[in-house]
Amino acid sequence: MWEEKDNKLIRSFTFEDFQSAFAFMTKLALYAEQVNHHPYWSNIYNRVTIELCTHDAGDVVTDKDYNFARAADAFYAKFV
Amino acid sequence: MWEEKDNKLIRSFTFEDFQSAFAFMTKLALYAEQVNHHPYWSNIYNRVTIELCTHDAGDVVTDKDYNFARAADAFYAKFV
Amino acid sequence: MWEEKDNKLIRSFTFEDFQSAFAFMTKLALYAEQVNHHPYWSNIYNRVTIELCTHDAGDVVTDKDYNFARAADAFYAKFV
Amino acid sequence: MWEEKDNKLIRSFTFEDFQSAFAFMTKLALYAEQVNHHPYWSNIYNRVTIELCTHDAGDVVTDKDYNFARAADAFYAKFV
Repeated sequence: MWEEKDNKLIRSFTFEDFQSAFAFMTKLALYAEQVNHHPYWSNIYNRVTIELCTHDAGDVVTDKDYNFARAADAFYAKFV
Repeated sequence: MWEEKDNKLIRSFTFEDFQSAFAFMTKLALYAEQVNHHPYWSNIYNRVTIELCTHDAGDVVTDKDYNFARAADAFYAKFV
Repeated sequence: MWEEKDNKLIRSFTFEDFQSAFAFMTKLALYAEQVNHHPYWSNIYNRVTIELCTHDAGDVVTDKDYNFARAADAFYAKFV
Repeated sequence: MWEEKDNKLIRSFTFEDFQSAFAFMTKLALYAEQVNHHPYWSNIYNRVTIELCTHDAGDVVTDKDYNFARAADAFYAKFV
C-alpha cells in the first residue's frame, strides 16, 4: 500500500507481465494529462513504482497526490 | 461477442471512459508487436471495434486471428 | 492533408511501422484528455485515419476540431 | 549520450512536454515486446531515464542493450 515518507507518497504495483504494467501506466498517463499532475515513476518488466509529491506546493504531499493515488489504486484493482 | 463475416472476425468493446479504452488498446498494441499480428481497429471515446483477418493468408480468418481475439477477451474481462 | 466533408474533418497519416503509428496515437490520446476532445480514429499497421467533429455542437466541425488537427499535424511533422 | 557504468548502459532524454516523453516511451515499449528485452526506466514530466542491462547474461551489458540504445536514439532523433 501507499507509504508516505520524505514528503512523498510511494507505492509499487506488480502485474502479470510487461504488457499489463504498461497498460496501467498508459491509463495513468492519460489521467495525469486530464488533471495536469504528473508522477515520478519507474518500471521494470512487470513492476511499476510511483512517487508522488506536488512541486507547485514546495514538493510536499497534497490532495493532488492523494487523488492520483486513489486513481492508481482504482485502476490497479482491475488487475488483481 | 465476436462475429465472423466477410472473412473477418469482428467485435466491439465498451469501457467506462476513454482512458480505459486506450489502456486496452495499448495492451493489445504490445501484444500485436509480440506476436507480429496487427488488427484493423477503430476507437471513439469509450468504444473500441476490432476487425481481424490474416493478410498473409489471403485476407481470411486464421488461428492468428482467433488467438488475438482470445487475448483481447482475456484483457477485456478485467474491465467488466 | 485534411479534407472537410459531411461535417467532418478527415486525414490519413502514414508511418514507417506500427510502433511509430501507435506512438503518434498515444501522443494524441494524451492531447485528447488534456483538451477533453476525442477523435474517431482507426488504425491498421502503419496507417492512422482521423475523423473529427464536435458532438456537443451538433456533430459539426468547430475550432476544437481545427485545433486537434493542428496538434496532429505538428506531431506528425516529426515523423516525415 | 549513453554512459556505461556499474554494468549498466544509462541515458536520459528530455522532451518538450510529458505527451512527447510518453509517446517516446510507448514506441520503446512496443520495441521491447518485439525484441523481448525490457528496460529499467523512469520518467518525470518531460524527462525519461533508461538503464539497460541483460538479466539472462548475469546483469551485464550485452548486444541486446546496445541494440535497444540504438533504437531509443533513432526514435529520439525525431524529437530534437
